[in-house]
Amino acid sequence: MVKVIVIGSGNVAQHLITAFQNAEKNESGISLIQVFARKRESLAALIPIQKVTNQFSELLEADLYIIAVSDDAIESVSSELLFKNRLVAHTSGSVPLTLLNNNNRKAVFYPLQSFTKGAAVDFKTIPLCLEAENSIDFQMLSKVGKLISDHATAINSQQRKALHVAAVFANNFSNHLYQIANDICKENQVPFSILKPLIQETAKKIVAIDPEQAQTGPAKRNDQITIDAHEAFIKDDNQLKIYKLLTQSIQHNGKKL
Amino acid sequence: MVKVIVIGSGNVAQHLITAFQNAEKNESGISLIQVFARKRESLAALIPIQKVTNQFSELLEADLYIIAVSDDAIESVSSELLFKNRLVAHTSGSVPLTLLNNNNRKAVFYPLQSFTKGAAVDFKTIPLCLEAENSIDFQMLSKVGKLISDHATAINSQQRKALHVAAVFANNFSNHLYQIANDICKENQVPFSILKPLIQETAKKIVAIDPEQAQTGPAKRNDQITIDAHEAFIKDDNQLKIYKLLTQSIQHNGKKL
Ligand SMILES: NC(=O)c1ccc[n+]([C@@H]2O[C@H](COP(=O)([O-])OP(=O)(O)OC[C@H]3O[C@@H](n4cnc5c(N)ncnc54)[C@H](OP(=O)(O)O)[C@@H]3O)[C@@H](O)[C@H]2O)c1
Ligand SMILES: NC(=O)c1ccc[n+]([C@@H]2O[C@H](COP(=O)([O-])OP(=O)(O)OC[C@H]3O[C@@H](n4cnc5c(N)ncnc54)[C@H](OP(=O)(O)O)[C@@H]3O)[C@@H](O)[C@H]2O)c1
Repeated sequence: MVKVIVIGSGNVAQHLITAFQNAEKNESGISLIQVFARKRESLAALIPIQKVTNQFSELLEADLYIIAVSDDAIESVSSELLFKNRLVAHTSGSVPLTLLNNNNRKAVFYPLQSFTKGAAVDFKTIPLCLEAENSIDFQMLSKVGKLISDHATAINSQQRKALHVAAVFANNFSNHLYQIANDICKENQVPFSILKPLIQETAKKIVAIDPEQAQTGPAKRNDQITIDAHEAFIKDDNQLKIYKLLTQSIQHNGKKL
Repeated sequence: MVKVIVIGSGNVAQHLITAFQNAEKNESGISLIQVFARKRESLAALIPIQKVTNQFSELLEADLYIIAVSDDAIESVSSELLFKNRLVAHTSGSVPLTLLNNNNRKAVFYPLQSFTKGAAVDFKTIPLCLEAENSIDFQMLSKVGKLISDHATAINSQQRKALHVAAVFANNFSNHLYQIANDICKENQVPFSILKPLIQETAKKIVAIDPEQAQTGPAKRNDQITIDAHEAFIKDDNQLKIYKLLTQSIQHNGKKL
Protein backbone atom coordinates (compact mmCIF):
# COMPACT_ATOMS: atom_id res chain seq x y z
CA MET A 1 0.00 0.00 0.00
CA VAL A 2 1.42 3.40 -1.05
CA LYS A 3 0.80 6.00 1.67
CA VAL A 4 0.27 9.65 0.67
CA ILE A 5 -0.18 12.81 2.74
CA VAL A 6 -1.44 16.12 1.32
CA ILE A 7 -0.35 19.36 3.00
CA GLY A 8 -2.66 22.32 2.31
CA SER A 9 -6.37 23.02 2.08
CA GLY A 10 -6.66 25.31 -0.94
CA ASN A 11 -7.85 24.68 -4.51
CA VAL A 12 -5.21 22.19 -5.50
CA ALA A 13 -5.14 20.39 -2.14
CA GLN A 14 -8.90 19.88 -2.26
CA HIS A 15 -8.84 18.54 -5.82
CA LEU A 16 -5.97 16.21 -4.92
CA ILE A 17 -7.84 14.94 -1.85
CA THR A 18 -10.87 14.12 -3.99
CA ALA A 19 -8.70 12.45 -6.65
CA PHE A 20 -6.91 10.29 -4.06
CA GLN A 21 -10.18 9.36 -2.39
CA ASN A 22 -11.50 8.21 -5.77
CA ALA A 23 -8.34 6.17 -6.34
CA GLU A 24 -8.75 4.61 -2.87
CA LYS A 25 -12.29 3.54 -3.75
CA ASN A 26 -10.93 1.74 -6.79
CA GLU A 27 -8.68 -0.31 -4.48
CA SER A 28 -5.70 0.78 -6.50
CA GLY A 29 -3.23 0.19 -3.68
CA ILE A 30 -3.04 3.82 -2.62
CA SER A 31 -4.09 5.37 0.66
CA LEU A 32 -4.45 9.06 1.57
CA ILE A 33 -3.60 8.51 5.21
CA GLN A 34 -3.61 12.13 6.43
CA VAL A 35 -4.02 15.78 5.44
CA PHE A 36 -2.40 18.85 6.99
CA ALA A 37 -4.50 22.03 7.12
CA ARG A 38 -3.94 25.15 9.21
CA LYS A 39 -7.70 25.36 9.64
CA ARG A 40 -8.79 21.73 10.07
CA GLU A 41 -12.49 22.54 9.80
CA SER A 42 -12.01 23.95 6.28
CA LEU A 43 -11.84 20.34 5.03
CA ALA A 44 -14.71 18.98 7.13
CA ALA A 45 -16.98 18.52 4.12
CA LEU A 46 -14.34 16.62 2.19
CA ILE A 47 -12.63 14.16 4.53
CA PRO A 48 -13.19 12.69 8.06
CA ILE A 49 -11.88 15.35 10.43
CA GLN A 50 -9.74 12.87 12.42
CA LYS A 51 -7.63 12.42 9.28
CA VAL A 52 -6.79 16.15 9.31
CA THR A 53 -4.03 17.61 11.48
CA ASN A 54 -2.85 21.18 11.98
CA GLN A 55 0.36 20.19 13.76
CA PHE A 56 3.52 19.40 11.80
CA SER A 57 4.62 17.27 14.78
CA GLU A 58 1.63 14.97 14.26
CA LEU A 59 2.42 14.10 10.64
CA LEU A 60 2.49 10.33 10.09
CA GLU A 61 5.06 8.37 8.11
CA ALA A 62 4.21 8.24 4.40
CA ASP A 63 5.76 7.35 1.03
CA LEU A 64 4.97 10.77 -0.43
CA TYR A 65 4.14 14.17 1.06
CA ILE A 66 2.53 16.60 -1.37
CA ILE A 67 2.84 20.26 -0.34
CA ALA A 68 -0.03 22.09 -2.06
CA VAL A 69 0.30 25.54 -0.49
CA SER A 70 0.79 29.02 -1.98
CA ASP A 71 4.04 29.37 -3.93
CA ASP A 72 5.58 31.73 -1.40
CA ALA A 73 4.86 29.35 1.49
CA ILE A 74 6.40 26.23 -0.09
CA GLU A 75 9.93 26.90 1.17
CA SER A 76 8.92 27.62 4.76
CA VAL A 77 6.39 24.76 4.95
CA SER A 78 8.99 22.31 3.65
CA SER A 79 11.42 23.50 6.34
CA GLU A 80 8.84 22.94 9.08
CA LEU A 81 8.66 19.20 8.42
CA LEU A 82 10.33 17.48 11.39
CA PHE A 83 11.37 14.26 9.63
CA LYS A 84 14.31 13.56 7.32
CA ASN A 85 15.05 11.81 4.02
CA ARG A 86 11.44 11.23 2.98
CA LEU A 87 9.95 12.07 -0.44
CA VAL A 88 8.42 15.58 -0.45
CA ALA A 89 6.84 17.18 -3.53
CA HIS A 90 5.36 20.58 -4.21
CA THR A 91 2.61 21.25 -6.78
CA SER A 92 3.79 24.52 -8.32
CA GLY A 93 4.43 25.28 -11.96
CA SER A 94 6.86 28.08 -11.24
CA VAL A 95 8.84 27.09 -8.12
CA PRO A 96 12.05 25.10 -8.74
CA LEU A 97 12.45 21.70 -7.12
CA THR A 98 15.54 23.01 -5.36
CA LEU A 99 13.54 25.42 -3.21
CA LEU A 100 12.33 22.52 -1.10
CA ASN A 101 14.25 21.98 2.15
CA ASN A 102 17.40 19.83 2.00
CA ASN A 103 16.23 17.63 4.88
CA ASN A 104 14.10 15.53 2.54
CA ARG A 105 14.17 14.09 -1.00
CA LYS A 106 12.74 16.65 -3.36
CA ALA A 107 10.10 16.24 -6.05
CA VAL A 108 7.49 18.11 -8.06
CA PHE A 109 3.92 16.97 -8.61
CA TYR A 110 2.45 19.73 -10.80
CA PRO A 111 -1.07 19.35 -12.19
CA LEU A 112 -1.25 21.55 -15.27
CA GLN A 113 -4.80 22.80 -15.03
CA SER A 114 -6.57 25.84 -13.67
CA PHE A 115 -8.54 24.83 -10.57
CA THR A 116 -11.45 26.58 -8.96
CA LYS A 117 -12.59 25.54 -5.49
CA GLY A 118 -15.81 23.56 -5.64
CA ALA A 119 -15.79 23.23 -9.45
CA ALA A 120 -15.54 19.50 -10.19
CA VAL A 121 -12.82 18.32 -12.57
CA ASP A 122 -12.00 14.90 -13.93
CA PHE A 123 -8.47 14.58 -12.59
CA LYS A 124 -7.82 11.67 -14.96
CA THR A 125 -7.74 14.11 -17.90
CA ILE A 126 -5.27 16.54 -16.29
CA PRO A 127 -1.61 16.48 -17.40
CA LEU A 128 0.62 15.84 -14.37
CA CYS A 129 4.20 17.10 -14.65
CA LEU A 130 6.52 15.03 -12.46
CA GLU A 131 10.11 15.58 -11.42
CA ALA A 132 12.33 13.83 -8.88
CA GLU A 133 16.03 13.77 -8.00
CA ASN A 134 16.61 10.13 -8.91
CA SER A 135 14.94 7.32 -10.76
CA ILE A 136 13.73 5.42 -7.67
CA ASP A 137 11.92 8.51 -6.39
CA PHE A 138 10.60 9.16 -9.87
CA GLN A 139 9.14 5.65 -9.97
CA MET A 140 7.21 6.26 -6.74
CA LEU A 141 6.04 9.67 -8.00
CA SER A 142 4.98 8.19 -11.30
CA LYS A 143 3.15 5.29 -9.62
CA VAL A 144 1.10 7.76 -7.55
CA GLY A 145 0.60 10.13 -10.49
CA LYS A 146 -0.67 7.40 -12.81
CA LEU A 147 -3.29 6.33 -10.26
CA ILE A 148 -5.00 9.71 -10.46
CA SER A 149 -4.12 10.94 -13.98
CA ASP A 150 -3.94 9.38 -17.43
CA HIS A 151 -1.36 12.00 -18.44
CA ALA A 152 1.56 11.79 -16.00
CA THR A 153 4.78 12.95 -17.70
CA ALA A 154 8.39 13.55 -16.66
CA ILE A 155 9.09 17.30 -16.89
CA ASN A 156 12.26 18.82 -15.48
CA SER A 157 12.48 22.24 -13.83
CA GLN A 158 13.70 24.00 -16.97
CA GLN A 159 10.91 22.47 -19.03
CA ARG A 160 8.38 23.34 -16.34
CA LYS A 161 9.53 26.95 -16.43
CA ALA A 162 9.02 27.01 -20.19
CA LEU A 163 5.59 25.42 -19.79
CA HIS A 164 4.61 28.03 -17.25
CA VAL A 165 5.64 30.89 -19.53
CA ALA A 166 3.85 29.22 -22.44
CA ALA A 167 0.73 28.79 -20.29
CA VAL A 168 0.75 32.50 -19.47
CA PHE A 169 0.59 33.26 -23.20
CA ALA A 170 -1.92 30.56 -24.09
CA ASN A 171 -4.22 30.99 -21.10
CA ASN A 172 -3.81 34.13 -19.01
CA PHE A 173 -3.22 36.34 -22.02
CA SER A 174 -5.93 34.70 -24.14
CA ASN A 175 -8.39 35.20 -21.33
CA HIS A 176 -7.41 38.86 -21.19
CA LEU A 177 -8.11 39.16 -24.92
CA TYR A 178 -11.56 37.67 -24.25
CA GLN A 179 -12.02 40.45 -21.70
CA ILE A 180 -11.05 43.11 -24.24
CA ALA A 181 -13.48 41.55 -26.74
CA ASN A 182 -16.15 41.68 -24.03
CA ASP A 183 -15.34 45.36 -23.37
CA ILE A 184 -15.60 46.20 -27.09
CA CYS A 185 -18.96 44.39 -27.29
CA LYS A 186 -20.31 46.20 -24.24
CA GLU A 187 -19.26 49.61 -25.55
CA ASN A 188 -21.13 48.89 -28.77
CA GLN A 189 -24.27 47.25 -27.36
CA VAL A 190 -23.51 43.84 -28.83
CA PRO A 191 -24.07 40.72 -26.73
CA PHE A 192 -20.66 39.11 -26.08
CA SER A 193 -22.43 35.74 -26.15
CA ILE A 194 -22.49 35.92 -29.98
CA LEU A 195 -18.71 35.44 -29.90
CA LYS A 196 -18.66 32.47 -27.55
CA PRO A 197 -19.15 29.65 -30.10
CA LEU A 198 -16.27 31.07 -32.17
CA ILE A 199 -14.04 31.28 -29.09
CA GLN A 200 -14.73 27.61 -28.32
CA GLU A 201 -14.07 26.67 -31.95
CA THR A 202 -10.74 28.54 -32.01
CA ALA A 203 -9.56 26.68 -28.91
CA LYS A 204 -10.84 23.33 -30.20
CA LYS A 205 -9.15 23.71 -33.59
CA ILE A 206 -5.62 23.47 -32.20
CA VAL A 207 -6.29 20.04 -30.72
CA ALA A 208 -6.16 18.73 -34.27
CA ILE A 209 -4.04 21.24 -36.19
CA ASP A 210 -1.00 23.38 -35.48
CA PRO A 211 -1.91 26.92 -34.30
CA GLU A 212 0.28 28.34 -37.06
CA GLN A 213 -1.86 26.59 -39.68
CA ALA A 214 -5.06 27.50 -37.87
CA GLN A 215 -4.26 31.23 -38.01
CA THR A 216 -6.86 33.35 -39.82
CA GLY A 217 -7.89 37.01 -39.87
CA PRO A 218 -6.88 40.31 -41.46
CA ALA A 219 -3.28 40.24 -40.16
CA LYS A 220 -2.68 36.77 -41.56
CA ARG A 221 -4.24 37.77 -44.90
CA ASN A 222 -2.28 41.05 -44.91
CA ASP A 223 -5.63 42.75 -45.46
CA GLN A 224 -4.43 46.31 -44.86
CA ILE A 225 -7.82 47.89 -45.61
CA THR A 226 -9.49 45.97 -42.80
CA ILE A 227 -6.53 46.54 -40.46
CA ASP A 228 -6.74 50.31 -41.08
CA ALA A 229 -10.50 50.27 -40.53
CA HIS A 230 -10.07 48.37 -37.25
CA GLU A 231 -7.37 50.74 -36.04
CA ALA A 232 -9.63 53.70 -36.84
CA PHE A 233 -12.49 52.01 -34.98
CA ILE A 234 -10.55 51.32 -31.76
CA LYS A 235 -10.75 54.34 -29.46
CA ASP A 236 -8.84 53.01 -26.44
CA ASP A 237 -5.06 53.57 -26.52
CA ASN A 238 -4.25 50.34 -24.72
CA GLN A 239 -6.46 48.26 -27.03
CA LEU A 240 -4.90 49.97 -30.03
CA LYS A 241 -1.35 49.18 -28.83
CA ILE A 242 -2.28 45.53 -28.39
CA TYR A 243 -4.02 45.42 -31.79
CA LYS A 244 -0.95 46.85 -33.53
CA LEU A 245 1.60 44.68 -31.74
CA LEU A 246 -0.25 41.41 -32.26
CA THR A 247 -1.08 42.27 -35.88
CA GLN A 248 2.62 42.91 -36.51
CA SER A 249 3.57 39.73 -34.70
CA ILE A 250 1.19 37.63 -36.83
CA GLN A 251 2.60 39.28 -39.95
CA HIS A 252 6.11 38.30 -38.82
CA ASN A 253 4.91 34.85 -37.81
CA GLY A 254 5.63 35.40 -34.12
CA LYS A 255 9.32 35.99 -34.77
CA LYS A 256 11.54 38.89 -33.78
CA LEU A 257 10.87 41.90 -36.05
CA MET B 1 -42.11 28.36 -50.59
CA VAL B 2 -39.20 30.74 -49.93
CA LYS B 3 -36.70 30.63 -52.80
CA VAL B 4 -33.01 31.21 -52.08
CA ILE B 5 -29.97 31.47 -54.38
CA VAL B 6 -26.36 31.30 -53.16
CA ILE B 7 -23.65 33.10 -55.16
CA GLY B 8 -20.13 31.75 -54.58
CA SER B 9 -18.40 28.42 -54.15
CA GLY B 10 -15.93 29.03 -51.31
CA ASN B 11 -15.99 28.02 -47.65
CA VAL B 12 -19.06 29.95 -46.62
CA ALA B 13 -21.00 29.23 -49.82
CA GLN B 14 -20.43 25.49 -49.41
CA HIS B 15 -21.52 25.48 -45.78
CA LEU B 16 -24.61 27.53 -46.67
CA ILE B 17 -25.49 25.13 -49.48
CA THR B 18 -25.30 22.18 -47.10
CA ALA B 19 -27.33 24.01 -44.45
CA PHE B 20 -30.06 24.93 -46.98
CA GLN B 21 -30.14 21.37 -48.34
CA ASN B 22 -30.67 20.09 -44.80
CA ALA B 23 -33.46 22.62 -44.27
CA GLU B 24 -35.06 21.50 -47.55
CA LYS B 25 -35.06 17.89 -46.35
CA ASN B 26 -36.97 18.95 -43.26
CA GLU B 27 -39.70 20.35 -45.53
CA SER B 28 -39.36 23.67 -43.82
CA GLY B 29 -40.81 25.64 -46.73
CA ILE B 30 -37.45 26.71 -48.11
CA SER B 31 -35.87 25.87 -51.44
CA LEU B 32 -32.31 26.44 -52.62
CA ILE B 33 -33.30 26.82 -56.25
CA GLN B 34 -29.89 27.69 -57.76
CA VAL B 35 -26.23 28.39 -57.05
CA PHE B 36 -23.84 30.65 -58.96
CA ALA B 37 -20.19 29.52 -59.23
CA ARG B 38 -17.51 30.72 -61.60
CA LYS B 39 -16.28 27.15 -61.82
CA ARG B 40 -19.48 25.07 -61.86
CA GLU B 41 -17.66 21.77 -61.42
CA SER B 42 -16.23 22.91 -58.05
CA LEU B 43 -19.65 22.19 -56.53
CA ALA B 44 -20.27 18.89 -58.31
CA ALA B 45 -19.88 16.85 -55.13
CA LEU B 46 -22.31 19.02 -53.23
CA ILE B 47 -25.30 19.77 -55.46
CA PRO B 48 -26.79 18.54 -58.80
CA ILE B 49 -24.76 20.32 -61.47
CA GLN B 50 -27.86 21.51 -63.39
CA LYS B 51 -28.67 23.68 -60.37
CA VAL B 52 -25.35 25.51 -60.77
CA THR B 53 -24.85 28.38 -63.22
CA ASN B 54 -21.80 30.44 -64.11
CA GLN B 55 -23.79 33.07 -66.00
CA PHE B 56 -25.28 36.05 -64.20
CA SER B 57 -27.83 36.26 -67.04
CA GLU B 58 -29.15 32.82 -66.13
CA LEU B 59 -29.98 33.64 -62.52
CA LEU B 60 -33.59 32.72 -61.66
CA GLU B 61 -36.04 34.81 -59.70
CA ALA B 62 -35.68 34.27 -55.93
CA ASP B 63 -36.76 35.80 -52.61
CA LEU B 64 -33.19 36.12 -51.38
CA TYR B 65 -29.78 36.14 -53.10
CA ILE B 66 -26.84 35.47 -50.77
CA ILE B 67 -23.49 36.68 -52.11
CA ALA B 68 -20.81 34.59 -50.38
CA VAL B 69 -17.71 35.73 -52.26
CA SER B 70 -14.43 37.28 -51.07
CA ASP B 71 -14.88 40.66 -49.37
CA ASP B 72 -13.22 42.56 -52.18
CA ALA B 73 -15.47 40.98 -54.83
CA ILE B 74 -18.79 41.72 -53.09
CA GLU B 75 -19.22 45.18 -54.64
CA SER B 76 -18.46 44.07 -58.19
CA VAL B 77 -20.50 40.85 -58.01
CA SER B 78 -23.50 42.80 -56.66
CA SER B 79 -23.19 45.20 -59.58
CA GLU B 80 -23.21 42.36 -62.11
CA LEU B 81 -26.69 41.23 -61.14
CA LEU B 82 -29.00 42.08 -64.06
CA PHE B 83 -32.27 42.35 -62.11
CA LYS B 84 -33.61 45.16 -59.94
CA ASN B 85 -35.28 45.67 -56.55
CA ARG B 86 -34.75 42.16 -55.25
CA LEU B 87 -33.35 41.25 -51.81
CA VAL B 88 -29.55 40.73 -51.99
CA ALA B 89 -27.38 39.94 -48.95
CA HIS B 90 -23.65 39.51 -48.46
CA THR B 91 -22.08 37.28 -45.78
CA SER B 92 -19.20 39.45 -44.60
CA GLY B 93 -18.41 40.59 -41.08
CA SER B 94 -16.46 43.61 -42.20
CA VAL B 95 -18.14 44.97 -45.34
CA PRO B 96 -20.89 47.55 -44.77
CA LEU B 97 -24.37 46.86 -46.11
CA THR B 98 -24.11 50.04 -48.18
CA LEU B 99 -21.37 48.59 -50.38
CA LEU B 100 -23.96 46.47 -52.18
CA ASN B 101 -25.21 47.87 -55.49
CA ASN B 102 -28.14 50.29 -55.36
CA ASN B 103 -30.10 48.33 -57.98
CA ASN B 104 -31.35 45.91 -55.35
CA ARG B 105 -32.56 45.88 -51.72
CA LYS B 106 -29.54 45.42 -49.47
CA ALA B 107 -29.01 43.01 -46.59
CA VAL B 108 -26.37 41.21 -44.57
CA PHE B 109 -26.43 37.50 -43.69
CA TYR B 110 -23.23 37.05 -41.65
CA PRO B 111 -22.52 33.70 -40.00
CA LEU B 112 -20.17 34.39 -37.11
CA GLN B 113 -18.00 31.31 -37.22
CA SER B 114 -14.68 30.32 -38.71
CA PHE B 115 -15.28 27.90 -41.58
CA THR B 116 -12.89 25.47 -43.15
CA LYS B 117 -13.79 23.80 -46.43
CA GLY B 118 -14.79 20.19 -45.91
CA ALA B 119 -14.86 20.43 -42.08
CA ALA B 120 -18.46 19.72 -41.07
CA VAL B 121 -20.20 22.21 -38.80
CA ASP B 122 -23.62 22.15 -37.21
CA PHE B 123 -24.99 25.34 -38.74
CA LYS B 124 -27.82 25.37 -36.18
CA THR B 125 -25.34 26.38 -33.47
CA ILE B 126 -23.78 29.25 -35.42
CA PRO B 127 -24.79 32.84 -34.55
CA LEU B 128 -26.22 34.54 -37.65
CA CYS B 129 -26.00 38.33 -37.72
CA LEU B 130 -28.76 39.80 -39.87
CA GLU B 131 -29.31 43.30 -41.19
CA ALA B 132 -31.77 44.74 -43.71
CA GLU B 133 -32.91 48.18 -44.83
CA ASN B 134 -36.51 47.82 -43.66
CA SER B 135 -38.61 45.59 -41.47
CA ILE B 136 -40.30 43.67 -44.31
CA ASP B 137 -36.91 42.67 -45.73
CA PHE B 138 -35.71 41.88 -42.24
CA GLN B 139 -38.65 39.52 -41.76
CA MET B 140 -37.72 37.57 -44.89
CA LEU B 141 -34.05 37.47 -43.84
CA SER B 142 -34.96 36.35 -40.36
CA LYS B 143 -37.33 33.66 -41.67
CA VAL B 144 -34.54 32.20 -43.81
CA GLY B 145 -31.95 32.61 -41.06
CA LYS B 146 -34.04 30.86 -38.44
CA LEU B 147 -34.49 27.84 -40.71
CA ILE B 148 -30.77 27.13 -40.69
CA SER B 149 -29.61 28.61 -37.33
CA ASP B 150 -30.95 28.67 -33.78
CA HIS B 151 -29.10 31.94 -33.17
CA ALA B 152 -30.27 34.47 -35.76
CA THR B 153 -29.95 38.01 -34.36
CA ALA B 154 -30.45 41.55 -35.68
CA ILE B 155 -27.04 43.26 -35.81
CA ASN B 156 -26.57 46.61 -37.54
CA SER B 157 -23.46 47.60 -39.49
CA GLN B 158 -21.91 49.53 -36.58
CA GLN B 159 -22.45 46.59 -34.23
CA ARG B 160 -21.09 44.17 -36.82
CA LYS B 161 -17.94 46.28 -37.10
CA ALA B 162 -17.49 46.11 -33.33
CA LEU B 163 -18.10 42.36 -33.38
CA HIS B 164 -15.48 41.90 -36.06
CA VAL B 165 -12.88 43.86 -34.10
CA ALA B 166 -13.81 41.94 -30.95
CA ALA B 167 -13.48 38.65 -32.83
CA VAL B 168 -9.99 39.61 -33.98
CA PHE B 169 -8.96 39.98 -30.33
CA ALA B 170 -10.81 36.92 -29.04
CA ASN B 171 -9.95 34.57 -31.89
CA ASN B 172 -7.20 35.62 -34.28
CA PHE B 173 -5.03 37.06 -31.52
CA SER B 174 -5.74 34.19 -29.09
CA ASN B 175 -4.74 31.72 -31.76
CA HIS B 176 -1.52 33.65 -32.29
CA LEU B 177 -0.80 33.38 -28.56
CA TYR B 178 -1.32 29.62 -28.87
CA GLN B 179 1.32 29.70 -31.61
CA ILE B 180 3.75 31.58 -29.39
CA ALA B 181 3.10 29.05 -26.60
CA ASN B 182 3.79 26.29 -29.12
CA ASP B 183 7.05 28.01 -30.16
CA ILE B 184 8.16 28.30 -26.52
CA CYS B 185 7.37 24.62 -25.94
CA LYS B 186 9.29 23.54 -29.05
CA GLU B 187 12.35 25.59 -28.11
CA ASN B 188 12.40 23.88 -24.72
CA GLN B 189 11.60 20.30 -25.78
CA VAL B 190 8.22 20.23 -24.08
CA PRO B 191 5.24 18.66 -25.85
CA PHE B 192 2.70 21.45 -26.58
CA SER B 193 -0.04 18.84 -26.11
CA ILE B 194 0.41 19.17 -22.31
CA LEU B 195 -1.10 22.66 -22.59
CA LYS B 196 -4.11 21.70 -24.68
CA PRO B 197 -6.51 20.68 -21.86
CA LEU B 198 -5.81 23.99 -20.12
CA ILE B 199 -6.44 25.93 -23.33
CA GLN B 200 -9.82 24.21 -23.73
CA GLU B 201 -10.65 24.90 -20.09
CA THR B 202 -9.77 28.60 -20.41
CA ALA B 203 -12.09 28.97 -23.40
CA LYS B 204 -14.86 26.95 -21.75
CA LYS B 205 -14.74 28.97 -18.53
CA ILE B 206 -16.04 32.17 -20.12
CA VAL B 207 -19.23 30.46 -21.25
CA ALA B 208 -20.29 30.53 -17.61
CA ILE B 209 -18.34 33.42 -16.07
CA ASP B 210 -17.19 36.86 -17.14
CA PRO B 211 -13.61 36.84 -18.57
CA GLU B 212 -12.69 39.57 -16.09
CA GLN B 213 -13.59 37.26 -13.20
CA ALA B 214 -11.94 34.28 -14.86
CA GLN B 215 -8.58 36.08 -15.10
CA THR B 216 -5.72 34.31 -13.31
CA GLY B 217 -1.93 34.33 -13.53
CA PRO B 218 1.06 36.33 -12.29
CA ALA B 219 -0.08 39.64 -13.83
CA LYS B 220 -3.49 39.40 -12.16
CA ARG B 221 -1.87 38.49 -8.81
CA ASN B 222 0.73 41.25 -9.23
CA ASP B 223 3.32 38.54 -8.62
CA GLN B 224 6.36 40.59 -9.60
CA ILE B 225 8.88 37.84 -8.76
CA THR B 226 7.31 35.47 -11.29
CA ILE B 227 6.88 38.26 -13.86
CA ASP B 228 10.59 39.13 -13.55
CA ALA B 229 11.56 35.46 -13.86
CA HIS B 230 9.41 35.07 -16.99
CA GLU B 231 10.85 38.21 -18.56
CA ALA B 232 14.35 36.90 -17.89
CA PHE B 233 13.40 33.55 -19.39
CA ILE B 234 11.99 34.94 -22.66
CA LYS B 235 14.79 35.37 -25.19
CA ASP B 236 12.79 36.57 -28.20
CA ASP B 237 12.27 40.35 -28.41
CA ASN B 238 8.85 40.09 -29.98
CA GLN B 239 7.61 37.60 -27.37
CA LEU B 240 9.00 39.84 -24.63
CA LYS B 241 7.21 42.92 -25.99
CA ILE B 242 3.93 41.01 -26.04
CA TYR B 243 4.54 39.61 -22.55
CA LYS B 244 5.17 43.09 -21.15
CA LEU B 245 2.27 44.80 -22.90
CA LEU B 246 -0.33 42.17 -21.97
CA THR B 247 0.97 41.93 -18.39
CA GLN B 248 0.60 45.71 -18.07
CA SER B 249 -2.81 45.60 -19.65
CA ILE B 250 -4.04 42.94 -17.20
CA GLN B 251 -2.64 45.01 -14.32
CA HIS B 252 -4.61 48.01 -15.60
CA ASN B 253 -7.65 45.84 -16.22
CA GLY B 254 -7.56 46.36 -19.97
CA LYS B 255 -7.99 50.10 -19.62
CA LYS B 256 -5.91 52.94 -21.00
CA LEU B 257 -2.69 53.31 -18.97
N1 LIG C 1 -4.91 27.03 -8.59
C1 LIG C 1 -4.44 26.43 -9.63
O1 LIG C 1 -5.11 26.43 -10.65
C2 LIG C 1 -3.10 25.73 -9.61
C3 LIG C 1 -2.77 24.85 -10.65
C4 LIG C 1 -1.57 24.17 -10.61
C5 LIG C 1 -0.69 24.36 -9.56
N2 LIG C 1 -0.99 25.23 -8.57
C6 LIG C 1 -0.04 25.38 -7.45
O2 LIG C 1 -0.54 24.68 -6.32
C7 LIG C 1 -0.16 25.35 -5.11
C8 LIG C 1 -1.39 25.70 -4.30
O3 LIG C 1 -2.21 26.57 -5.07
P1 LIG C 1 -3.75 26.77 -4.76
O4 LIG C 1 -4.38 27.30 -5.97
O5 LIG C 1 -4.31 25.53 -4.15
O6 LIG C 1 -3.67 27.91 -3.68
P2 LIG C 1 -4.85 28.42 -2.70
O7 LIG C 1 -6.16 27.92 -3.13
O8 LIG C 1 -4.63 29.89 -2.57
O9 LIG C 1 -4.47 27.70 -1.33
C9 LIG C 1 -3.25 27.97 -0.70
C10 LIG C 1 -3.10 27.04 0.47
O10 LIG C 1 -1.82 27.29 1.07
C11 LIG C 1 -1.99 27.38 2.46
N3 LIG C 1 -0.93 28.19 3.01
C12 LIG C 1 -0.51 29.42 2.62
N4 LIG C 1 0.51 29.86 3.38
C13 LIG C 1 0.76 28.86 4.27
C14 LIG C 1 1.69 28.70 5.33
N5 LIG C 1 2.63 29.63 5.60
N6 LIG C 1 1.64 27.56 6.03
C15 LIG C 1 0.74 26.60 5.77
N7 LIG C 1 -0.17 26.69 4.77
C16 LIG C 1 -0.15 27.81 4.06
C17 LIG C 1 -3.34 28.00 2.64
O11 LIG C 1 -3.81 27.77 3.91
P3 LIG C 1 -5.04 28.66 4.52
O12 LIG C 1 -6.27 28.16 3.79
O13 LIG C 1 -5.01 28.26 5.95
O14 LIG C 1 -4.71 30.08 4.24
C18 LIG C 1 -4.11 27.24 1.57
O15 LIG C 1 -4.51 25.97 2.04
C19 LIG C 1 0.66 26.55 -5.54
O16 LIG C 1 2.03 26.18 -5.55
C20 LIG C 1 0.20 26.79 -6.98
O17 LIG C 1 1.20 27.42 -7.76
C21 LIG C 1 -2.18 25.92 -8.56
N1 LIG D 1 -14.30 31.81 -43.99
C1 LIG D 1 -14.94 32.21 -42.92
O1 LIG D 1 -14.68 31.64 -41.85
C2 LIG D 1 -15.99 33.30 -42.97
C3 LIG D 1 -16.86 33.45 -41.87
C4 LIG D 1 -17.87 34.40 -41.94
C5 LIG D 1 -17.99 35.22 -43.07
N2 LIG D 1 -17.11 35.08 -44.11
C6 LIG D 1 -17.31 35.94 -45.29
O2 LIG D 1 -17.91 35.16 -46.31
C7 LIG D 1 -17.47 35.62 -47.60
C8 LIG D 1 -16.84 34.47 -48.37
O3 LIG D 1 -15.73 33.99 -47.62
P1 LIG D 1 -15.14 32.54 -47.87
O4 LIG D 1 -14.35 32.19 -46.64
O5 LIG D 1 -16.21 31.63 -48.33
O6 LIG D 1 -14.09 32.84 -49.03
P2 LIG D 1 -13.34 31.79 -49.96
O7 LIG D 1 -13.44 30.41 -49.41
O8 LIG D 1 -12.03 32.37 -50.24
O9 LIG D 1 -14.23 31.81 -51.28
C9 LIG D 1 -14.35 33.01 -52.02
C10 LIG D 1 -15.36 32.80 -53.12
O10 LIG D 1 -15.50 34.03 -53.81
C11 LIG D 1 -15.46 33.76 -55.20
N3 LIG D 1 -15.03 34.98 -55.89
C12 LIG D 1 -13.95 35.73 -55.63
N4 LIG D 1 -13.87 36.75 -56.47
C13 LIG D 1 -14.95 36.65 -57.31
C14 LIG D 1 -15.43 37.39 -58.40
N5 LIG D 1 -14.81 38.51 -58.80
N6 LIG D 1 -16.55 36.96 -59.01
C15 LIG D 1 -17.20 35.86 -58.59
N7 LIG D 1 -16.80 35.11 -57.56
C16 LIG D 1 -15.67 35.50 -56.92
C17 LIG D 1 -14.49 32.63 -55.31
O11 LIG D 1 -14.66 32.01 -56.55
P3 LIG D 1 -13.51 31.05 -57.15
O12 LIG D 1 -13.57 29.78 -56.31
O13 LIG D 1 -13.97 30.84 -58.54
O14 LIG D 1 -12.22 31.78 -57.02
C18 LIG D 1 -14.94 31.77 -54.16
O15 LIG D 1 -16.07 31.01 -54.49
C19 LIG D 1 -16.52 36.78 -47.32
O16 LIG D 1 -17.26 37.97 -47.38
C20 LIG D 1 -16.06 36.52 -45.90
O17 LIG D 1 -15.70 37.70 -45.23
C21 LIG D 1 -16.12 34.13 -44.09
